[in-house]
Amino acid sequence: MGSHPPGLTWALIEEARARIAPLINATPVLTSTTLDQAAGAHLFFKCENFQKGGAFKARGASNAVFSLPEGQVRHGVATHSSGNHAAALARAARLRGVPAYIVMPNSTPLAKRAAVERQGAEITLCEPTLAARERAAAEVIARTGAVLVHPYDDLAVMAGQATVGVELLEQFPDLDLVLAPVSGGGLLSGIAVAAKTLRPKVRVVGVEPAGADDAARSLRAGRIVPCEHPQTIADGLRATIGVRPFAEFQRYVDDVVTVSDGAIVAAMRHIWEVMKIIVEPSGAAAYAAVAAGRLEVRGARVGIVLSGGNLDLESLPWLKPARE
Amino acid sequence: MGSHPPGLTWALIEEARARIAPLINATPVLTSTTLDQAAGAHLFFKCENFQKGGAFKARGASNAVFSLPEGQVRHGVATHSSGNHAAALARAARLRGVPAYIVMPNSTPLAKRAAVERQGAEITLCEPTLAARERAAAEVIARTGAVLVHPYDDLAVMAGQATVGVELLEQFPDLDLVLAPVSGGGLLSGIAVAAKTLRPKVRVVGVEPAGADDAARSLRAGRIVPCEHPQTIADGLRATIGVRPFAEFQRYVDDVVTVSDGAIVAAMRHIWEVMKIIVEPSGAAAYAAVAAGRLEVRGARVGIVLSGGNLDLESLPWLKPARE
Repeated sequence: MGSHPPGLTWALIEEARARIAPLINATPVLTSTTLDQAAGAHLFFKCENFQKGGAFKARGASNAVFSLPEGQVRHGVATHSSGNHAAALARAARLRGVPAYIVMPNSTPLAKRAAVERQGAEITLCEPTLAARERAAAEVIARTGAVLVHPYDDLAVMAGQATVGVELLEQFPDLDLVLAPVSGGGLLSGIAVAAKTLRPKVRVVGVEPAGADDAARSLRAGRIVPCEHPQTIADGLRATIGVRPFAEFQRYVDDVVTVSDGAIVAAMRHIWEVMKIIVEPSGAAAYAAVAAGRLEVRGARVGIVLSGGNLDLESLPWLKPARE
Repeated sequence: MGSHPPGLTWALIEEARARIAPLINATPVLTSTTLDQAAGAHLFFKCENFQKGGAFKARGASNAVFSLPEGQVRHGVATHSSGNHAAALARAARLRGVPAYIVMPNSTPLAKRAAVERQGAEITLCEPTLAARERAAAEVIARTGAVLVHPYDDLAVMAGQATVGVELLEQFPDLDLVLAPVSGGGLLSGIAVAAKTLRPKVRVVGVEPAGADDAARSLRAGRIVPCEHPQTIADGLRATIGVRPFAEFQRYVDDVVTVSDGAIVAAMRHIWEVMKIIVEPSGAAAYAAVAAGRLEVRGARVGIVLSGGNLDLESLPWLKPARE
């Protein structure tokens, strides 16, 4: 591999961990005899659905907002996000005492929009395309002087998300494999650097919806290949992998596998029914890869990141009339 | 108080605890900053929805089945139950290697019926009245020679349920108040004996649906006053308090308060949204008493038993069209 930009280091992750410790939950790891038997493996579910704000995003957003110098952060922070990062950034800004400006696609689920409003952020709605989001964010920043905190293509955000991996490997040091969902890649890149530092032998595999498989295709191509029109029920997994996360993927991620939307919904429902915990579709994707047999796990000790639990309880995917 | 039958003792509870330890989960206690702030109190949620089979009933059923002498238990066990006790008894029988015969009202939610079938028990459906249930159970017992394990009016069952209180007071020894739902009274009577033994100053309060408030009325009357036609969405809380549980209520339970079905559904939904865990309506009743202001908790340390998490995910109460 040739030259590359400065990447995510263990030092950045350790700093992030100390910085955000008072701002986040160290989340529990749950196990299930029933799901272990179904998989023929030992599964360790890292419950980021129990994180502050209901998703891992609290980690990266808190690290980014609290690592900014006072002089930079005082006019506030801004982002464009489909939901969980937005609420997490709004919360971190409130805790630091600065304003937050959030650009959201108008297709964002109501529950995620309400979560941002509860944190007192200013919301700007836009069309659900990357171009519209970036344009609206640029306008907000020009108007307010706020600092952009990108949802994933940002080393401070990645270092914050990496603490999921640090906690998981401390809680269960002898994992053979760690699975996490992939959208922009901030979570999995952070976990990969953390996990391979703490346990070089561990395999780290990402899981993507088949209809938003840019990371899998990018890894194969050796360059970022965006999905022009991502199609998946997992509203948190539609972003294209970022430049900085992709660099870490190339160094540290062993594979990215894909799962169908049907497998995601089935996995989500199975988690609800058996584990009695609420995960959103994106949060169930990593387990879906196991349940649908998308990779070999027999006999292995597998860490599975349940990344979030925010969704409209009015419109569960198994209750929707079939439309396709 | 005059003479009374031999009651639930600490010795029975300690025996139960040792007996069932390998058969059940020691369930976690979760906390929520958001719900603490809403209540103005410190809430400690004892998660029996994470118990084996998704409800506290695994404790009492396991204790009853495993305390029966071999000569008595070999033709199996039988019960009539609206669901969670039935599945728990079926599981305990399977673990002991004896048959289970379950009489269920034909109004039982599908998810609860399927849980019994998965444990390999024989199911007999009957009309949803106490008389029909008892008649069907008597027929099954006459035919099979099975031993009746009553869902709540049984000291071995009560001693098993009491271990919820033992664990909770060990996990958080300085609680001011413990709240649990009341149906036949097995759970709350057990918790009351355990909690008052471990911490005599603790208050123990039961919570009933307003439409099935026989325990509250019975405590006031000083004798059991059945609800002829219980009306509540909480399908696990429709039974009339049993003789043995009622005796412990009179000695150890400080109060029983009631909550409306609307308060139960709102509490259930709030727990799902904020805590990201699944509780059934019966399981949310104790928190409903706090959320609806049915008793004074300000500043107190309150243990709240989330008794179970089994329900049809196809028919959530907030999705049903209003019918009344």
